[in-house]
Amino acid sequence: MEEYYMNTAIELAKRGEGQTMSNPLVGAVVVKDGHIVGMGAHLKYGEDHAEVHAIRMAGEHAKGADIYVTLEPCSHYGKTPPCVDLIIKSGIKRVFIAMKDPNPLVAGKGISMLEAAGIEVTTGILEHQAEELNKMFLHFMRTGLPYVTLKAAASLDGKTATKTGDSKWITSEAARLDAQQYRKSHQSILVGAGTVKADNPSLTCRLPETPKQPVRVVLDTKLSIPETANVISDRAAPTWIFTANGADEEKKNRLAALGIKIFTLETDRIHIPEVLGILAENGIMSVYVEGGASVHGSFVKEGCFQELHFYFAPKLIGGTLAPSLISGEGFQSMKDVPHLQFTQITQIGPDIKLTAKPQDEKDGDDVYRNR
Amino acid sequence: MEEYYMNTAIELAKRGEGQTMSNPLVGAVVVKDGHIVGMGAHLKYGEDHAEVHAIRMAGEHAKGADIYVTLEPCSHYGKTPPCVDLIIKSGIKRVFIAMKDPNPLVAGKGISMLEAAGIEVTTGILEHQAEELNKMFLHFMRTGLPYVTLKAAASLDGKTATKTGDSKWITSEAARLDAQQYRKSHQSILVGAGTVKADNPSLTCRLPETPKQPVRVVLDTKLSIPETANVISDRAAPTWIFTANGADEEKKNRLAALGIKIFTLETDRIHIPEVLGILAENGIMSVYVEGGASVHGSFVKEGCFQELHFYFAPKLIGGTLAPSLISGEGFQSMKDVPHLQFTQITQIGPDIKLTAKPQDEKDGDDVYRNR
Repeated sequence: MEEYYMNTAIELAKRGEGQTMSNPLVGAVVVKDGHIVGMGAHLKYGEDHAEVHAIRMAGEHAKGADIYVTLEPCSHYGKTPPCVDLIIKSGIKRVFIAMKDPNPLVAGKGISMLEAAGIEVTTGILEHQAEELNKMFLHFMRTGLPYVTLKAAASLDGKTATKTGDSKWITSEAARLDAQQYRKSHQSILVGAGTVKADNPSLTCRLPETPKQPVRVVLDTKLSIPETANVISDRAAPTWIFTANGADEEKKNRLAALGIKIFTLETDRIHIPEVLGILAENGIMSVYVEGGASVHGSFVKEGCFQELHFYFAPKLIGGTLAPSLISGEGFQSMKDVPHLQFTQITQIGPDIKLTAKPQDEKDGDDVYRNR
Repeated sequence: MEEYYMNTAIELAKRGEGQTMSNPLVGAVVVKDGHIVGMGAHLKYGEDHAEVHAIRMAGEHAKGADIYVTLEPCSHYGKTPPCVDLIIKSGIKRVFIAMKDPNPLVAGKGISMLEAAGIEVTTGILEHQAEELNKMFLHFMRTGLPYVTLKAAASLDGKTATKTGDSKWITSEAARLDAQQYRKSHQSILVGAGTVKADNPSLTCRLPETPKQPVRVVLDTKLSIPETANVISDRAAPTWIFTANGADEEKKNRLAALGIKIFTLETDRIHIPEVLGILAENGIMSVYVEGGASVHGSFVKEGCFQELHFYFAPKLIGGTLAPSLISGEGFQSMKDVPHLQFTQITQIGPDIKLTAKPQDEKDGDDVYRNR
């Protein structure tokens, strides 16, 4: 029964997807005598929390009721008053919480305050699902860095193009459409300069229900992408370019004048952790990395990713000279090779999507790092 | 109901796996008044057919009964008398057949003879499953060439070793054990000389219930594998070597003296279709190709395979110089690339096995080629 109500709260929370940045998704359900008497979700940053909506809907019924919340209620004044005070005032007798507040500075405080007021608190109901619901937000809170998903498409033998560079198209339209939804669910899309030069992509999300286009991030050590590239000229979404020592200052100025944001690293090469740090400082909580192979190689080498989405088409390109999914140096020995675990296998049209995550990336991991 | 009985016949047929070469697997069930009164399977080449066992078990009950057979009953004298005669004599009234005889010279003859005797015949019950049951045999009958399965193991990014050649082990023990069962179900295992030199494999099936070790086939253009290689010295299974023009005659003689069969092609390179033709002439109906990448590349380039088994480990080896699943020339353009279709996705321990087959390789395809 507890899981049933918590699941309802999680489903409610999902309705706020893409609308609450940079707040997490939260849902709440008030239950009295086996009846749902109130439901709510956090829908917009700065506006009412899920508990407020649910308790308001419950009205007088809240007295003596249970509340199910996907995240520990807040105990501090932020944009809105603390939910803990409201719960106590409402006369609710039992609180069920999926997971504690991810902020180590306040985690558990809301629970202590509720208990001090004589309210029975149970935590950990569907904790795994609640973690999944806010995985990007939680990763950002815990590490101070954006959540990174690496995405690539290849033939079954791991080739991303023929030896002549032909890559249109390896995967089916259905698979390419599937990838579009991740452009929507991430705050930024990152590619290397090579991809811009080879494919001239627009890197926008073409799904109709896209409230806000993700930021397009290009890693371009020598600032070599042409000024006619779609990401520069189409103005369909913000474009940020990371470049390094020695990039043409005049070109930087011209691009800046077009509204392109330029980040110049004080190094000869672009170092991925530094890029992620700068993205985080600029409010980017999630990055969808679409390649090419050397960019993926850099993220893998640095261990800078939380998820990997590989789309495989049932085709065999072959060829020693045809490009592979991940290029760059690679690892010397099997003992150095990063171990992942598969998280999902999905058939999409004729293709297969394999998703994986680093093996040490535990759900609900309690390792916090300060920003 | 018809499918239930036919399924029983198919399950019976499977018990003869690996015992009936070079006959197909066949099962039969005799049903009267809703009771199974007889069951049989073909268990050994040259011995009784499934129908004989099933009708003998049914005894007097066969009169007026139905018989379910996975393959059209034979109408000619081979090692045993024609089953059609026995069915007619037994008084059976209805015959249900999963699939027609794959031999174009006799296909449909058994059915005509039954119908001429006033017996009602229905064909096509669980035809797909019956095809699958004898897929290797049927392919051999139809094309005159062995059924070829390509097998390889790689990291998720399609690499079969690190750039230094380290490949022990990419996949888990569970995945490697899974592959052993295919060594058992194929009549031969084929590798290139490079694999013998790099890994010195024994290429035997290590499953306890292996009645007969498959033939080990090595493609060795220059007859360069060392005489100390396991496949030459361990005498654990027959070894056949294909070599080409200019191979050392003395070495050939020494190997032949050890019982190794040497096939010398009159060309400078080893041509896969020719190898398959020779294997067929020597009674090999199925080949499990375990690599390396250039051997796989040759089979793919020539379109010489019916199935492909790729095991992917959740690891990222990376590296432009690390070897890929399929090497060789590769295809120039996406339009030339062979299209497959996925047939199975299996999680094995931490790994995933993807199986695929050529898209034009239809089940129950009616294309016959003369040998």
